[in-house]
Order: sequence, then C-alpha cells, then structure tokens
Amino acid sequence: MHTHTIHYLSTSLGKTLRSASHEQESKNGSLLTRAGFVAQMAAGMYTMLPLGMRVLSRIEGIVREEMNAIGSYELAAPTLHTRQVMERAGRWDSIDVLYRLQSRQGSELCLQATAEEAVCAAFQGRIASHRDLPVSVYQISDKFRDEQRPRAGLIRGRAFRMKDLYSFHATEADLRQYYERVVSSYLRVFARCGIGANVFRTFASGGAFSKFSDEFQLLSDSGEDTIFLTEDRSLAINKEVAEDSEALTALFKGTRPHLTEHRAIEVGNTFMLGHRFTDAFNIRYQDDTGELQRVWMASYGIGTTRLVGAVAEVLSDDRGLVWPKEIAPYDVHIVVIGDRSKTAEYLERVTRWVEREQLCALIDQREEIRAGEKFADADLIGIPTRIVVSERSTEDSLVEVKARTEDLGTRVKIEELRI
Amino acid sequence: MHTHTIHYLSTSLGKTLRSASHEQESKNGSLLTRAGFVAQMAAGMYTMLPLGMRVLSRIEGIVREEMNAIGSYELAAPTLHTRQVMERAGRWDSIDVLYRLQSRQGSELCLQATAEEAVCAAFQGRIASHRDLPVSVYQISDKFRDEQRPRAGLIRGRAFRMKDLYSFHATEADLRQYYERVVSSYLRVFARCGIGANVFRTFASGGAFSKFSDEFQLLSDSGEDTIFLTEDRSLAINKEVAEDSEALTALFKGTRPHLTEHRAIEVGNTFMLGHRFTDAFNIRYQDDTGELQRVWMASYGIGTTRLVGAVAEVLSDDRGLVWPKEIAPYDVHIVVIGDRSKTAEYLERVTRWVEREQLCALIDQREEIRAGEKFADADLIGIPTRIVVSERSTEDSLVEVKARTEDLGTRVKIEELRI
Repeated sequence: MHTHTIHYLSTSLGKTLRSASHEQESKNGSLLTRAGFVAQMAAGMYTMLPLGMRVLSRIEGIVREEMNAIGSYELAAPTLHTRQVMERAGRWDSIDVLYRLQSRQGSELCLQATAEEAVCAAFQGRIASHRDLPVSVYQISDKFRDEQRPRAGLIRGRAFRMKDLYSFHATEADLRQYYERVVSSYLRVFARCGIGANVFRTFASGGAFSKFSDEFQLLSDSGEDTIFLTEDRSLAINKEVAEDSEALTALFKGTRPHLTEHRAIEVGNTFMLGHRFTDAFNIRYQDDTGELQRVWMASYGIGTTRLVGAVAEVLSDDRGLVWPKEIAPYDVHIVVIGDRSKTAEYLERVTRWVEREQLCALIDQREEIRAGEKFADADLIGIPTRIVVSERSTEDSLVEVKARTEDLGTRVKIEELRI
Repeated sequence: MHTHTIHYLSTSLGKTLRSASHEQESKNGSLLTRAGFVAQMAAGMYTMLPLGMRVLSRIEGIVREEMNAIGSYELAAPTLHTRQVMERAGRWDSIDVLYRLQSRQGSELCLQATAEEAVCAAFQGRIASHRDLPVSVYQISDKFRDEQRPRAGLIRGRAFRMKDLYSFHATEADLRQYYERVVSSYLRVFARCGIGANVFRTFASGGAFSKFSDEFQLLSDSGEDTIFLTEDRSLAINKEVAEDSEALTALFKGTRPHLTEHRAIEVGNTFMLGHRFTDAFNIRYQDDTGELQRVWMASYGIGTTRLVGAVAEVLSDDRGLVWPKEIAPYDVHIVVIGDRSKTAEYLERVTRWVEREQLCALIDQREEIRAGEKFADADLIGIPTRIVVSERSTEDSLVEVKARTEDLGTRVKIEELRI
C-alpha cells in the first residue's frame, strides 16, 4: 500500500509533547496527542497530523482492498445534503444528531450523517431491470454527528471518517447472502488491523432502521458499550438484546446460557434496511416477466478514524503506542546515537537496506536530543521495529534490533535482517 | 496507481442516460451526467459515481505523488472549524462564502473553506526552533463555499474537493525558493492530467491574502475568468493586473506589449501569505543565536473535482468525453458483439492479455444492447482505447483496436497489442 519512504523525525513531524496541558480524558486521545499523531482543535474535532494520517491511510487502504474484493464500487456522495432529499424517508426530523444549516439564499441543508438517501437518489433511474442488480457501492468520507458530549479522543467525534457501504438486491435471499460476505470482509479488516481476536460480531436490535442488525464490538475496559458473551465466546449480544426476554428465548431456544458482561467499543455495524429507503425513493426493478418488483437494501459501516483511536486504546502499554505491523505509520524506527561523523557510514548501509527491502523508515538523527529521550520517543510512537545505529555499529558492523513488544534487542548485521 | 481491474458495464455502473432532463447548463455537467460519471443532488452538489470516482482517484493520486515528491507531508484538518479559531486572523467575518452553523449546545462552527487557521493551530508549539523549519504539509479534502450561484457543473460547486498545501519558512528567500518548487510541481500535475499545454501560470493581484500570488488558468471558451497573454504566450496576467497600470509598467518595464484576451478556468492558485497567519497564531522560531523570529508562510491550492470538470470541458468532442491516458477511468473499453457462445473463447484470450499487461478494463458484454449503441456509449464514456471482440475474432483471431481520438481502427492479434 505505502510506497518505500524515508522520513526524518523532527519537531514538526511527530515531536512528542510531554506537557500536562495535552492530557485528555481518554487514553487514546492523550497518547495520540503526546506522540504527535493528532492535534485537537476543540472537543471532538481533530487534525490528523502526518503520523496519524499515515495510520489512517493504511487502515483505509485495507478497507478499500476488502470492499473492492467483494465487488463493491467506490463512489462519493455529497457532504452537503438538501432538506428535500432527507425528507424522502423522513430522516430530516428524526435524526437528532443532524447538523442543519442554511445557505445565504435560504436553502436548508444538512451535513452527511450517513448516505442512504444520497445513494438512493443517485441510483434512481439506474436500477431498472433485474440485470442491474445486485449493486454494491461504498465511500470513505467525513460524517457528522452533533454529539451532546463528544469524547473519548478519536472514538466519538463531531466529525469523523467512515466507510459506508450500500447494497441493493432483487431478493431477500440475495441480500442475506451478500450481507454475510460483508460480515466476513469486516472480520478480515479487523484481523488485518491487529484486533481480530478481540472483535465480536454482536447481535443487535437494529437501532433506527430495522429489526436485524449486527454490531462489531472490540473488547475494551474503556468502551462506552456493554456486550454479553457466552462462556465459549461463540456468541455475543448487545445490551438491548440481553434485556429482551423474547429475543433471548429465540436465540438460545429456551436454555439459559451463562453470559459474561464486557465493556466494548463499536468499530462497525451492519443493517438490513429492507424496503424502507428503496420504497421512499421509488426504486423498482422489472423482473424477467416484465413485472415491477421492490428492491431490498442494506447498509454497512466502519469508522476509520475511530479504528485509529480504538487500536491506540487497546494495544498501547505504559510506554506508549504499539502499532500492529499492517497499520503502523512506518515499518522501522531508526535511532542514530553518537557522533554523526562516526555513524554516517553505517547509517548509509542501513538506508540502502531500507531501499532494497522497499520499507518505510522513520530516522531519528536529532543531534540535540539525548539517547534516552530518543528511545522513550520511539516507544511512545510505537513503530513495530526499532533499529539503533551507534558508534559501536561502525566498529562491529552490527545494529541493535528490538521489537516494540519486547524489552531486549539483539545485535545483527543489517543485511541479514528480515522484518 | 490503480491496480489491475476488470469491471463489467451495466446499467448501474456507467449506464448512459439520454433523457433531456439530465441536460445541464454546462458542457461538463451535462456530459459527465449523461456518461454516468456524476449524479446531481442539487445545484453545485454532486455524487461522484464509480466512473467519476475512478477519474478523481487517479487525479488525486497524481497530486499526492507530486506533493510527496517536493517533501510535503499529508495531513487532514478538521472539516468543522470553531468560530474561535477563525477569529484569530479575522476571517470569521471576512469570508462571505463561509457556511456557518451552530451545534445543539450553541457552539458556533463553520465548514472548512481553506485551512490556514487549522494548520497554524495544529503547528503552534511544534514550530519552535530553526531546526523545525521549513515545514510543508498538505491535505486533499472537502472544501465548502456558499456560492450565490453554483454552476458550471463540477467547476464551481458549493462543496468540492481541493488539495491545499501550506508551507512555513525561516526566511523570505527560503519561502520564495520553495514557492517556485510548488509552481513546478503544479505544472507537472497539469501536464500529467493532459492539459499542460493550455494551462498558464498567470500573474494575479493576490485576492484576500496578499499582493503576491499566481493563478493557474486553463484556456476554455466556457471559462468564467478572463486572462491576457503576450503574443509569444510566455507571460499571462489576470484581469485585475491588466487593469492596474502601475503593475503593468512594473511587469513590462514601460513597453506596451500586445496582449490577447482569453476565457479561462482557474485550476490552481498559490499565495505568499507573509506573516499574516503566523503572527495571528503567534508562531515564532528561535534562530541559532536564541532570538525569536517571525515565520513566513504560503498556501497553495488545486481543485481536484474541478479538474475532473475542467478536463471534461476542454477535452471532449461532439461524441462525448475524451480522457487522457493517465487519468482515464480504465485503460481499455472492451466491446463484445455477437452471440456470446461464439465470442466467449476469444474474450477469454483478451481477458488473459488484460491480466498479463496489468491493465484496468471495462467490458461491455450487455446482451440486450445493439452494437451501434455500445459504440456510442464507448465514445460517450471516453476511455482512450476501444477493443471490439466479435464473432469474426473467433474466425481470424484478430480484434479491432481504435483510439478514442481516431475514427478508424485496425485489426490486430490481441497478444501483439501494446497500449
């Protein structure tokens, strides 16, 4: 995904900040701010700084690959929606977190919260025959929710980035089959982001849209949601389902399962929408006998900035961030210590190795910073592999290599290193 | 940039529309709508459909490559800005096209028009020493302007995508040198988008920010701007400069040049901002003697959705769109005509060739559509190379290959084709 890159650590790129004024109520907000991944403008409004942007781009690259792999096409709905389009399915008034605004000429607009309406409006007239179905489209774009209390760093913002996918089908059976393909692709996304073992597909009541939906919940003590797991962890249900005796009876066929309660962060969700939006936009298809039929629809979301925050929240330790390999901002963090004239030659060898291996490297050769501080910064930033080039490297031709997850490194010849 | 892909033309992907209700006042809006690249929700508010999204992604890929090549780092400023941050440099009240809104709790917010304030806010405290400069950062994101009369298709919208770059420097000389590097990178972007020969770096008065700025103007009879070119086309000036006798005298050293008037579309701009924003945000650096110094800043923009519209506007002909190679949605448009059972084997050979050459192909094997209509659709969509697989191909092992810009094709063995 990322092409081979060598960047140099400086104050402006990833300067770590230690002042208490940058502490925030959440662990992810605090760590990502101190490590130079984000800068907060106001509650729930963040700038993704270059380090954070690289993580976000890698996550969105994974999402894009997985959505393309299930035959979905990328598009982009307008960020501004008209009141008129939002009224078609009755959501102008019913979404309480909708940001509404007026143009100078008095048109009533809102900011995109999700894009069911925009996608239906765009596909009106494009879905006409059974030959046009199924259709699956997605976008990765800004979403807006006027939260009463934006909080938890990147996990609940007023504005955030989300991948949202919409699929249209001729039959309920086709929709259900595709829905399961999307669920599988979601599980691959979370696995590739390094959190697969702790994300649970969770039965949910369906929120505003439908009676059938799933949440993807990442176990985390600081999560805002509560979920319940069966003892063997083969089944997860959300709080609403757990409190609904009818649903429980249907799910467990009358037996009383032993459920354990957990805090979790919702990192994705999927909704069967049925005909709600397609009927509102009068989207119909002609079947092979020429008769008009209703169209089935589902929508599916993954918050990509939220994933940055969620991974930071659950995979960090007391020294800082710990990025999984596939979404790390760089592959290797190269710390240069000692006199520059005595390390330059070996650093050149390391740089050639980075090029040959087509890696992304962050090099810290700041002269004004002590070695101990550089090591602390490397731990805080959390790149998977740290390589130390020192004056000793020039003598014995070895570098120290240490994984972020380990305490001790080993000394190796750079040319023999495989990561 | 794009990985090898095979997609099939269907109604939902790129169905061409011929109804007059989709005609719009601008050529680009009308063509892009009819060819299935965009769908309009309201004036100045478009959905980029999958075909349009592929062009936009290719353009943004080129922009990203060129900005990375001049040492700039990608980031993302928040789309929502606070009134407080916009007041720092006095722009909350002075930008008349600013969309303002209120949160439910009464916070005053606006939508990002440009991001000088957000970037300065994020780099406060990160630029502290001469070692931290220069800094160059860019983003590619939605921008919002409450235009009185959004029009001209994708060329002037209420919401659009823009690459905006911000650079910070210790000295004016360093800023001027970097500014010229950005200008060169802009000219490379326009050349790679296929419009290089008709884009002119145009002296401009500087708009709201400064007395020193450049516009990048693409000659087009339907452009909203007026520019003036010297006879040898070595120098271009905008209308404000042409009407300013003092500026003219300085520029032409008292001689009276012969200038010709042209209509043009502004596809980029660059502004020397001086200290205006850095002073407002109190961004200072310590020089090597420890003294605090002011920081120089410039900003630079390219509208990426506008580029989609501008290329459609100037490179189309009376049959449809004509995409330059590097930004075309696909490399080849494969039209299959005749009985599917008699073409399947040869189509398989063509598909293997597409895979071997790592191309992106759009295949039209719709059975219900006549050959003439398929050819008209191929011309309307405007992919650079058209390949026709017919029953004859099975007999003589040849396909017809035709460039979009030519009238006649030639028959070749698919394996011998290089594009």
